[in-house]
Amino acid sequence: MQYNVAVVGAGGYTGVELIKILLDHPHFNLAYLSSSQGGEEISDLYPALKGVFSYKLKKTDVKEIADTCDLAFLALPHKNAMEVAKPLLDLGVKVVDLSADYRLRLENYEAFYTRHSDNEHLKEAVYGLVEIYKDEIQKARLIANPGCYPTATLLALIPFLPYIESRHSLIIDAKSGVSGAGKKCSQKTHYVSINENIFAYNPLKHRHAIEIKEKLELLGKEIYHINFVPHLLPLTRGMLVSIYAQLQTDIDPLEVLEDFYANEEFIRIKREPVDVKSVAGTHFCDIYAQKHGNTLFISSAIDNLLRGASSQAVANANLMMGLDASIAMPKIAAIP
Amino acid sequence: MQYNVAVVGAGGYTGVELIKILLDHPHFNLAYLSSSQGGEEISDLYPALKGVFSYKLKKTDVKEIADTCDLAFLALPHKNAMEVAKPLLDLGVKVVDLSADYRLRLENYEAFYTRHSDNEHLKEAVYGLVEIYKDEIQKARLIANPGCYPTATLLALIPFLPYIESRHSLIIDAKSGVSGAGKKCSQKTHYVSINENIFAYNPLKHRHAIEIKEKLELLGKEIYHINFVPHLLPLTRGMLVSIYAQLQTDIDPLEVLEDFYANEEFIRIKREPVDVKSVAGTHFCDIYAQKHGNTLFISSAIDNLLRGASSQAVANANLMMGLDASIAMPKIAAIP
Amino acid sequence: MQYNVAVVGAGGYTGVELIKILLDHPHFNLAYLSSSQGGEEISDLYPALKGVFSYKLKKTDVKEIADTCDLAFLALPHKNAMEVAKPLLDLGVKVVDLSADYRLRLENYEAFYTRHSDNEHLKEAVYGLVEIYKDEIQKARLIANPGCYPTATLLALIPFLPYIESRHSLIIDAKSGVSGAGKKCSQKTHYVSINENIFAYNPLKHRHAIEIKEKLELLGKEIYHINFVPHLLPLTRGMLVSIYAQLQTDIDPLEVLEDFYANEEFIRIKREPVDVKSVAGTHFCDIYAQKHGNTLFISSAIDNLLRGASSQAVANANLMMGLDASIAMPKIAAIP
Amino acid sequence: MQYNVAVVGAGGYTGVELIKILLDHPHFNLAYLSSSQGGEEISDLYPALKGVFSYKLKKTDVKEIADTCDLAFLALPHKNAMEVAKPLLDLGVKVVDLSADYRLRLENYEAFYTRHSDNEHLKEAVYGLVEIYKDEIQKARLIANPGCYPTATLLALIPFLPYIESRHSLIIDAKSGVSGAGKKCSQKTHYVSINENIFAYNPLKHRHAIEIKEKLELLGKEIYHINFVPHLLPLTRGMLVSIYAQLQTDIDPLEVLEDFYANEEFIRIKREPVDVKSVAGTHFCDIYAQKHGNTLFISSAIDNLLRGASSQAVANANLMMGLDASIAMPKIAAIP
Repeated sequence: MQYNVAVVGAGGYTGVELIKILLDHPHFNLAYLSSSQGGEEISDLYPALKGVFSYKLKKTDVKEIADTCDLAFLALPHKNAMEVAKPLLDLGVKVVDLSADYRLRLENYEAFYTRHSDNEHLKEAVYGLVEIYKDEIQKARLIANPGCYPTATLLALIPFLPYIESRHSLIIDAKSGVSGAGKKCSQKTHYVSINENIFAYNPLKHRHAIEIKEKLELLGKEIYHINFVPHLLPLTRGMLVSIYAQLQTDIDPLEVLEDFYANEEFIRIKREPVDVKSVAGTHFCDIYAQKHGNTLFISSAIDNLLRGASSQAVANANLMMGLDASIAMPKIAAIP
Repeated sequence: MQYNVAVVGAGGYTGVELIKILLDHPHFNLAYLSSSQGGEEISDLYPALKGVFSYKLKKTDVKEIADTCDLAFLALPHKNAMEVAKPLLDLGVKVVDLSADYRLRLENYEAFYTRHSDNEHLKEAVYGLVEIYKDEIQKARLIANPGCYPTATLLALIPFLPYIESRHSLIIDAKSGVSGAGKKCSQKTHYVSINENIFAYNPLKHRHAIEIKEKLELLGKEIYHINFVPHLLPLTRGMLVSIYAQLQTDIDPLEVLEDFYANEEFIRIKREPVDVKSVAGTHFCDIYAQKHGNTLFISSAIDNLLRGASSQAVANANLMMGLDASIAMPKIAAIP
Repeated sequence: MQYNVAVVGAGGYTGVELIKILLDHPHFNLAYLSSSQGGEEISDLYPALKGVFSYKLKKTDVKEIADTCDLAFLALPHKNAMEVAKPLLDLGVKVVDLSADYRLRLENYEAFYTRHSDNEHLKEAVYGLVEIYKDEIQKARLIANPGCYPTATLLALIPFLPYIESRHSLIIDAKSGVSGAGKKCSQKTHYVSINENIFAYNPLKHRHAIEIKEKLELLGKEIYHINFVPHLLPLTRGMLVSIYAQLQTDIDPLEVLEDFYANEEFIRIKREPVDVKSVAGTHFCDIYAQKHGNTLFISSAIDNLLRGASSQAVANANLMMGLDASIAMPKIAAIP
Repeated sequence: MQYNVAVVGAGGYTGVELIKILLDHPHFNLAYLSSSQGGEEISDLYPALKGVFSYKLKKTDVKEIADTCDLAFLALPHKNAMEVAKPLLDLGVKVVDLSADYRLRLENYEAFYTRHSDNEHLKEAVYGLVEIYKDEIQKARLIANPGCYPTATLLALIPFLPYIESRHSLIIDAKSGVSGAGKKCSQKTHYVSINENIFAYNPLKHRHAIEIKEKLELLGKEIYHINFVPHLLPLTRGMLVSIYAQLQTDIDPLEVLEDFYANEEFIRIKREPVDVKSVAGTHFCDIYAQKHGNTLFISSAIDNLLRGASSQAVANANLMMGLDASIAMPKIAAIP
């Protein structure tokens, strides 16, 4: 089976990661690539692609996508994404949206982002956390691809939901590489600012906190006090999330993880603390856990651009097309 | 007033930082430098010192130190330190020990390190957290210079002790640059292993946790559940500590900090999250705090080799000699 | 066609890169992996391989290799390599040696390395610069896989040999990432030493200079004064070589390169200066050239562990087995 | 003696380095700081200065500078600099200009930069290479502070001028940290672009080549073929320049250097290859040289923001005011 797919917003970091994965995908053809302006040769934007892949980006045209593609990946800023998703869905194209536009309930979205202009499709969007919502994803027309921080957090936390106290404050201390801040340059992403540096940003106020909270509630666990503090790190890609929760049951943390993910190829339970370099370049989520009295410490690591964005998006698309989620998922890290 | 001082263990990272500070000290003369072997020219070990300072390290000889020096800085591994401190004190030399040997009560020391061979002086040792124990330090003969993690943690936490719950678990998520691991090379400090990487190490088991716990108790606050997780970061120097505690009183965190440290030149309360680059190369401890419901988040940054070791050691020595603690303290960070 | 291959010395950086390539090779089976000690689980040495590949390294046994394998890759230090290559060849196993042992004529080898213990096979060894010696490689039993610096230098320089002056000094100013120094840790590869640093090492005396000189002579061009200065850089992988030569003919440098490599998929001639990030993770060698008066400047970039070692080794093995050199060659860089 | 000085363009990297040096200067008072907009608090621009130095930048006003200051440092882009320098000089203020505006003869300046609007003062400007033009600098009203690349190159090359061939092409392969590209952010200085990367930029065309050529001619040595290739490196500060020249005389390179700079405190001749970390944070220029046949290799290292800009500027100002050049020059590197 062969499907034509589009990457809308191909010029950004998650766009190029989609391209890199799709180039080797046995069932998906890169049939349409676009940017807001159009006209850029992708191998000029990313010279590493010279001799590997050449394509002159089109100016995004939903009609043209609908004429040629079965599914579109939207690697766009929030707000732009729903403006493209809506007509695509109406024209029968399946959509994996990498932005925040379909991740939250209307009231949460509008409280933390902006006015929502596609409430109709918002209702049917499935949250694309692959291991957790496999069945729903297989039937979905529209996937809200999870944020990088929520992915690393939820995959680590969900196995423990039955065992942790709801009323005790949950701490999520997250550390992200600079690629998570996107391709646009600013004082914060200037080499001189972040090299040899680390700092928290938007502590306790980052929009990914509400995404985590809402998804936990959806799974039947209301955690009342979620404290989420992201940090920016001097490394290009990779994300490490340290979670601290209070146990209400005496469990063996590694056993809980190993049981929960026994059949999941791309979740690795580690018996030593995880590191980001072992997952960078892959779809793996590595998780380690340990307890100290009743305090549970979980450490999870992902590649923010892959499992935290583009490889998870392709895994979702695989499921939507009736394929195995693991097809084309990168497994071999960029070590040493 | 001029005093002769010794640096014992001058070849390591904290040793050379001591030298760099003492070179510009108006009241201390670098009268004696030694290493375990002896014989190395310090400017061969650190070519950056060529043309600045030349000295052939002696083989440590306590008698010789006592003959020439008023005070000795011990930049030695634990266990070695007390073997040198003991005879020095007996010979009337004041000692600032940068190791862990005099930081803990006997039972804690022996539980986490090794057998203690100088229990007598252990009893009189003063914990050299400058802003907190100024009076005791001024009268002390023996200073236990605090560890880097405890320094960044305690300075951030102490102002809040009256306001935080004792029975709620305290989370200390710490991030350290590689120089904290010392000059000896290992797979962990190999450039290829830590560049583009981050990982927790000794989570919940690091020996600095007991130092934090004991010192909080000393200040009259027993915190029952201290969870301390250090991480190693791809940067040379600097340390960021994120602390999460539960408030039992409704306070304004920044106001608490500003009041507590109103007269302290080297503690800066920041109204934005702190970063390590702003303190690297200085004696400053920068602290930021914010609350979210009852959860208190504190972020503190220090230079692990200066405020976390060598500049704090010199500040202690200043006080021990009746000088102002701030003399020779480095203030200007290595930015940009 | 399926062939069984061995990786001898699997625990080092080039060993694990061989494994990563061979895991996806459609015609080679990883049948035998060994180390000098034996007994290590490869996914303990490289936790990134957990869930991808598991193998308990054997203690190298040439008889066992000969019983099971058609070809062996030797990722060993020089001297060790020939001790293993010799019996393997005698037992009929083809060998790709990644060390220096078979790269040089006897007198050069013994002048720059050590006494040679396998002069017999040395005579038949083919220098595995894939694009240049394709025919010889296809017939070879023993390949001397080129060094990283010579690979980047020779591929850049060979197209210009007819046009450059022999008696004018040739300058090769090379810059290498730290992985080129190998897995063993030392003060030089300590993160604290090389981060935020750069320096020349072994200037004008590095052993790769004689390899470059000898290979140019083999191609009929004696260059009398080769000046080779390698530098160590604060990055993990990648190598940039800047070459300065004197032209004796008026040429268009980019045209010369484009003509020479017109049919080579893995040599990319760039119209802008090359960068290492565009080749890191791939088998590509990117080359740029420009002239200024009669001075020719060539800049070439490779991944030191792939094109400079392991992917070139596999390309050689492909040819030796009658396969297309490009099979399993990594093309997609680890950008962004 | 006390002098009031101004820093015009205080917000950039060289501006803040000037401030850091001047804060500790025993004879200069930071009397006036300005930016093009004015209004910024300097410790908001550089939070590391909080608690160290506070100043609200003025909007540059030459009249006001002339009323309050004896000397002004101009840390401005070229073209802007001469627009400020001209009226300042006319009003009797001495000027150290860190831009390129007064570095070149008119025809060279206009060929490589833009039209010159202050030809009159251009004629009297002294090139501020401290060790070489001490006498002229002492009498000067206007100093053209040398560029970073020319500083590292000329200091290394000048001692060898009597011994190198004029007609043989001279190679200057330079490597600079990212701070050399300034504070403005761009794709090139984005952390993700330059981390784990290195590349040449403007090879053979960089404007610093003409500065080197012209200054060598001024010293009586016409070198016909200067080939200058700068590279951008993944480190914040520091610059390493590798120079390759042809000797016409049989000399001992280290002896030549040691003789030439026998009385210069801030030029260190090293017997091992130099590294940038040993000079970062200081005014030192470290130089090493070696020959290979007739080819001379010189390696020199400076801090691009200090010796390559701001500390050299202050050394010039010291001389202009009749002070010792070494006053307030930073000597202690930011090692480890």
